[in-house]
Amino acid sequence: MKQLVGSAIIGQSGGPTSVINASAYGVIRTALDNPCITKVYGAAHGIRGVLDDVLYDMGEEDAFELSLLLHTPSSALGSCRYKLKDPDVDDTDYKRILEIFQKYDVRYFFYNGGNDSMDTCNKISKYMQRVGYECRVMGVPKTIDNDLFGTDHCPGFASAAKYVATSCMEIYQDARVYDTPMVCVVEIMGRHAGWLAGSAAAATYLGCGPDLIYLPETDFDVEQFLADVERLYKETGKVFVAVSEGIHDANGKLIAEYGAENAKVDSFGHKQLGGLAATLVDMIKNRLPDVKTRGIELSLLQRCAAHCASQTDVDESFAAGKAAVENAVNGVTDKMVAFERSYDAEGNYVCNLKLVDLTLCANTEKKVPREWINAAGNGLEKPYVDYLLPLLKGEVQPEKEFGLPRFAKLKKVVAGK
Amino acid sequence: MKQLVGSAIIGQSGGPTSVINASAYGVIRTALDNPCITKVYGAAHGIRGVLDDVLYDMGEEDAFELSLLLHTPSSALGSCRYKLKDPDVDDTDYKRILEIFQKYDVRYFFYNGGNDSMDTCNKISKYMQRVGYECRVMGVPKTIDNDLFGTDHCPGFASAAKYVATSCMEIYQDARVYDTPMVCVVEIMGRHAGWLAGSAAAATYLGCGPDLIYLPETDFDVEQFLADVERLYKETGKVFVAVSEGIHDANGKLIAEYGAENAKVDSFGHKQLGGLAATLVDMIKNRLPDVKTRGIELSLLQRCAAHCASQTDVDESFAAGKAAVENAVNGVTDKMVAFERSYDAEGNYVCNLKLVDLTLCANTEKKVPREWINAAGNGLEKPYVDYLLPLLKGEVQPEKEFGLPRFAKLKKVVAGK
Repeated sequence: MKQLVGSAIIGQSGGPTSVINASAYGVIRTALDNPCITKVYGAAHGIRGVLDDVLYDMGEEDAFELSLLLHTPSSALGSCRYKLKDPDVDDTDYKRILEIFQKYDVRYFFYNGGNDSMDTCNKISKYMQRVGYECRVMGVPKTIDNDLFGTDHCPGFASAAKYVATSCMEIYQDARVYDTPMVCVVEIMGRHAGWLAGSAAAATYLGCGPDLIYLPETDFDVEQFLADVERLYKETGKVFVAVSEGIHDANGKLIAEYGAENAKVDSFGHKQLGGLAATLVDMIKNRLPDVKTRGIELSLLQRCAAHCASQTDVDESFAAGKAAVENAVNGVTDKMVAFERSYDAEGNYVCNLKLVDLTLCANTEKKVPREWINAAGNGLEKPYVDYLLPLLKGEVQPEKEFGLPRFAKLKKVVAGK
Repeated sequence: MKQLVGSAIIGQSGGPTSVINASAYGVIRTALDNPCITKVYGAAHGIRGVLDDVLYDMGEEDAFELSLLLHTPSSALGSCRYKLKDPDVDDTDYKRILEIFQKYDVRYFFYNGGNDSMDTCNKISKYMQRVGYECRVMGVPKTIDNDLFGTDHCPGFASAAKYVATSCMEIYQDARVYDTPMVCVVEIMGRHAGWLAGSAAAATYLGCGPDLIYLPETDFDVEQFLADVERLYKETGKVFVAVSEGIHDANGKLIAEYGAENAKVDSFGHKQLGGLAATLVDMIKNRLPDVKTRGIELSLLQRCAAHCASQTDVDESFAAGKAAVENAVNGVTDKMVAFERSYDAEGNYVCNLKLVDLTLCANTEKKVPREWINAAGNGLEKPYVDYLLPLLKGEVQPEKEFGLPRFAKLKKVVAGK
């Protein structure tokens, strides 16, 4: 294998997670410590920072502050939702990226994100191959949605799932405190894949979670839903429902749109959802006018509650970033780091790293297998819980100041200025 | 002091907190271990459990499970929002309570709650005195609102404040991740007192919190608010707002009602608020049509997120319950346990216990001093932060199972059945 010496860029893209910076730290720390990598640049707001020539010199950062990235949520370098065009239609952006790569002698490009980011990463990788510019391009996965193809699970998912399951357990305690009936609906992120909403099933498995869980993998029938709620309400007086934001009817129409017909669309063409919990609560109030209801949207916190991260997830996220650099230095390119699960002789979960072609990961969504969802489509089966629980293990012990998180404070010294 | 031998009742009432069970455990454990107390009963759903003769025999519980109450959120014995009538108008309930006290030889009554609960506790105390039934009655404070009179701060507040400040710090990281403008509004509990919303100022003090914080202690001017938001939006593109649910205009009209005129009223005559964040976000969208907005209601989680409790709060909550029993056994009655703050020679915060007349605590609300709020009424001053920070100290290490909370599982053996 030919040794490749040059600088590296790390960019973060898409919706943030509690541990995306643990992956970034895995890349940055490993790259700073590797003699083949002469400079490590953090792209401001993902690929936008490359296009705009705003690159932070990570060598200027204090080592302690960098280490705090392990427990600092959201993308510390900034994120974007910028979709690169097909280079055969318009290669303006690609020419600009090449120009910046040449300007900074970039020979390593690490992109930390989900499906759309792997698409960006893949397009850049293929373009650099086509124009013959030697640069090793590696995807570092992240998404709370857990919908990336080619990996057993995705960095960021476990921490979000731990937050969702923990919060559901706490809400369960609270929502049952009075001697009066109560219907509570919790709305969880997930447009097309229900992995995260499914994590509420861990709370149910431990005896204090939702009675009903609906994922976008099955069609949502409003009448059946109201019948489910009414039945439980009559049986126990307490009903706890968890739903993915992306649940839809048999025609594919989003249930969130039953309430608000005109949701906004972002630059990837995804509808900006929201208000589903309120929509369902309104439906329940129409059916059961006297019952007290509560709609709870976990909102941004499910993807940024680093205080409740899974230590397993932090460790794996760091390892993914580290492996991306080590593999690239060893000659690998055009791959995404992925996870494969195994169990040791004692039956303990083991996470093994592997590499997957970027082409395979880009834009392919992995959904919850139908057989892990119950026949009625209102709950999860035991194999899903068995899949999930090992990922939640381990409590983080982040640095604190006055009993509050001490997040990384980066200097963000812009290179070449 | 005459030794008083008999059984004890502990009841929990009002909205739950993350640590109300730590106080209950302080009462239960201390009472079970005290030879003067022959039986310890937990009233199911507060005073309703006394009226309905549903008392759990706490001596039947497993000691380990009881110890888990330290980190189990929400009222484990169940809560109620039941208001006792004026005994001069209707003494039916009081006669029934006396009957139950006599039936179980109850000589100690501990009531764990906020303003309304101290009112209940005070009325029972005075009634028992009037009819000459010897029973020592003690209030054990709790409220996330921190609005109880006669105490420096209130068990439950610090943990809720820690959750609010931590969540605001995390939301701050997330809401600034993209290179596009964003206005984020976080709605925090607090009808008449803004202590809890004020706790977001700790996040601001640490460099990642709301730009604007509005409490119900000052009148909210919609035009001034929109001008504040617009100014910051034009300066930085990112605006982070925290509001108490109870903010109101100069006429006393709730801002939440600008959006929804017909909020429900609970049995204490309090309006059930909600949707304030959405109402403010709508106003902002009208003023700044192109900006991306996010309304976040912290909802039930701020009062039940035991995973993010303050260890200081857990310790003090337990101590308050313990002191209630110890004082009662030593002859004290008709008091609420309260906290007084001092600082040691090194300037470290010290919490001292004291006793306050129940009559003084019942139904008196303590608000944030005007001088701790800035002149513009859109932020907190340093003395408030100095008051708050010592209370947030210490990370809880609750029992876990599969990386998720292991809450107390009580048998709840009903006495006399």
